[in-house]
Amino acid sequence: MTHIAEIIAVGTELLLGGTANTDAQDISQGLSELGIHCYYHTTVGDNPERLRKALRIACARADILITTGGLGPTYDDLTKQTVCEFFGRRLAPHGPTWERIEAYFRRIGSPLTENNRQQALLPEDCVIFENDWGTAPGCAFQSDKTHVLMLPGPPRECRAMFRRCAMPYLSALRGGALVSRVVRVFGLGESRMETLLRERMERAQNPTIAPYAKEGECFLRVTASAGTEDEARALTGPVVEELCHILHPYVYGVDVDALENVVFSLLERHKKTLAAAESCTGGLIAARLTALPGASRVFLGGVAAYHSRVKRDLLGVPEDMLREYGAVSRPVAEAMARGVCERMGASLGLAVTGLAGPDGDGSGTPVGTVFLALHDTEKGCACTQVSLGGDRTRIRSAASGQALNMLRRHLED
Amino acid sequence: MTHIAEIIAVGTELLLGGTANTDAQDISQGLSELGIHCYYHTTVGDNPERLRKALRIACARADILITTGGLGPTYDDLTKQTVCEFFGRRLAPHGPTWERIEAYFRRIGSPLTENNRQQALLPEDCVIFENDWGTAPGCAFQSDKTHVLMLPGPPRECRAMFRRCAMPYLSALRGGALVSRVVRVFGLGESRMETLLRERMERAQNPTIAPYAKEGECFLRVTASAGTEDEARALTGPVVEELCHILHPYVYGVDVDALENVVFSLLERHKKTLAAAESCTGGLIAARLTALPGASRVFLGGVAAYHSRVKRDLLGVPEDMLREYGAVSRPVAEAMARGVCERMGASLGLAVTGLAGPDGDGSGTPVGTVFLALHDTEKGCACTQVSLGGDRTRIRSAASGQALNMLRRHLED
Repeated sequence: MTHIAEIIAVGTELLLGGTANTDAQDISQGLSELGIHCYYHTTVGDNPERLRKALRIACARADILITTGGLGPTYDDLTKQTVCEFFGRRLAPHGPTWERIEAYFRRIGSPLTENNRQQALLPEDCVIFENDWGTAPGCAFQSDKTHVLMLPGPPRECRAMFRRCAMPYLSALRGGALVSRVVRVFGLGESRMETLLRERMERAQNPTIAPYAKEGECFLRVTASAGTEDEARALTGPVVEELCHILHPYVYGVDVDALENVVFSLLERHKKTLAAAESCTGGLIAARLTALPGASRVFLGGVAAYHSRVKRDLLGVPEDMLREYGAVSRPVAEAMARGVCERMGASLGLAVTGLAGPDGDGSGTPVGTVFLALHDTEKGCACTQVSLGGDRTRIRSAASGQALNMLRRHLED
Repeated sequence: MTHIAEIIAVGTELLLGGTANTDAQDISQGLSELGIHCYYHTTVGDNPERLRKALRIACARADILITTGGLGPTYDDLTKQTVCEFFGRRLAPHGPTWERIEAYFRRIGSPLTENNRQQALLPEDCVIFENDWGTAPGCAFQSDKTHVLMLPGPPRECRAMFRRCAMPYLSALRGGALVSRVVRVFGLGESRMETLLRERMERAQNPTIAPYAKEGECFLRVTASAGTEDEARALTGPVVEELCHILHPYVYGVDVDALENVVFSLLERHKKTLAAAESCTGGLIAARLTALPGASRVFLGGVAAYHSRVKRDLLGVPEDMLREYGAVSRPVAEAMARGVCERMGASLGLAVTGLAGPDGDGSGTPVGTVFLALHDTEKGCACTQVSLGGDRTRIRSAASGQALNMLRRHLED
């Protein structure tokens, strides 16, 4: 049978604009992957009367209700009480949950209040979603033809619990297991990726194919359901292969992390150290790499060489080269990569110089022109030129990604 | 009379999880500032029948309906048609809007399709909200007791049009003018700020006081309504003053931009140039400053000195100093600031060294310990130590903010 879901977010802070309803987005992504339709999202405040009204409306137009928020220990967290009253289901204390909450507070060394006991009340005959990321457990129960799922509001908790507990629950409503895989792509815009795959995605029923874009990187999630996990995984294989084939030069990995994580692992595996010299990206590459714990094992440091004087004095780019070719040029990019590599004693030097705009440099070089250079103490220097579109922020972000991708390809060769 | 608003977001991409409903957040913030209650948000797909149902429900519980999305030129942009049908209002071609759209396409050099003509259809007897940020105009009309506002979906367009056009329209429903001012705060967490001001904020009716937090910085928006703009502005004065008094050491400006913009302006005004040496922030300060167009006028460059060797070779930090005090220490921070300042030939050198975690460095120094140093070629060197909480991302982001704030205070003295 076809299910229709509705998401009800509970929280006055959402209505006051204090926070965006990202829970609805995260859950909607998962529902799409499961092939479950969702026709409405509703947001309502911490108000039992208005929540009851929202439940009444939702029951008439969906058979899966997913609430987020209002499971906390304070007086205005009323979701469980209101939902259980509405469906005529009793709340009962749940021993193991109470022990988990006690243990959590012992661990963080905070005193436990009587209110916390409320969090250990759960609907009778429900499936409990344990919360490994906070204190409030979630749950699910069935009332006549309606399935009710309650998830915590904090996005990190909601997202994790939805993926780990609620998606398998929903998948099981149709019977069977669910397997989800990720194809990571770089250098292809979301709209171009969608154009390339639209027809393929529309045909996809099982597995489903869903595209995502985040900070200049795209990825595709391939989700299959089947009787067993092995069967579901087997279904994903040919589709993942097909996508890798269609998007070939842009795919940098399947079931891997973001680009900087892949670069980090490759550097570790090859026992290489890296130094970066950045002009237009001005520290973005260094900031992306040093965001990773343990970065110091592979990343020695970087120079944001914004002014020509810095390129000359700290990186050893010759004065006449700068004069003859200009700062945005192939010889300068190569000299920067070699300079930073040698001066920091690294095995690899990565350099970026380009025009991020909004204004040009007066030389006629178009905004968006970027030179990327990679110096390898064993293999010498390589340089490529790219033309990037968009505003200053976009050009800088794309240039840092292009540089990391160049390094990744070099290390994978 | 008291108004109650409801926001209806129209767009299948929201229901598929492709994007978060940030329009509802932006609009809700503005409604809070206006003192207009909002009890529900609804999201519905590009489907006339379901949109009609959502309108019927909303009409029964609110007297101001604000729709977002579905004003574009494609076949699935149905908001205007559906809303006008629902309220029995005719759509008519609007000459000046058509001319604006034609001019827009001429400017960007794209061909105009017949569909674009649909965007120039507007409800009869409506107030037009011109779109300076895209092609689809918004509008507002009154039907019996209900006020209907339609805004475009793209967040940048929606936010700008809501602030510039819809807020004055809504303010005028109550008669009079609206003035909004911003008090910028650094170094105070959102929850501490709310604790300090809760009682004051709850009392605030006109002006209203609303707190916001974004990427480690907080600000307060003070919004007054009155018969004229001058009267409204006069009402904000004492409240802004009071807030500045309560939050004194944390306020860095009223009606100013983010911290890096303020630093940028101060450097320009004092004709100073800056160089940065970053250990634990690893390029974040450089990245924040070089994100601003024209950064090269005041920022010469930075060194992400992650490895001790880089601190020694590129910044001239003495080897024995590193051995004796460790990399996370006051002498090293000062030597880094002096070193980067001298080697880049800047008038000011800013340095950060600290432990961002998750692991310590084995010396017993707690994670979150950060030393900030500022070297001024005219006034010498200053250094402060701070203890920052949170995870690696939070510590790095807060440390970069603390460093910029130190520089701001130095330049303002």
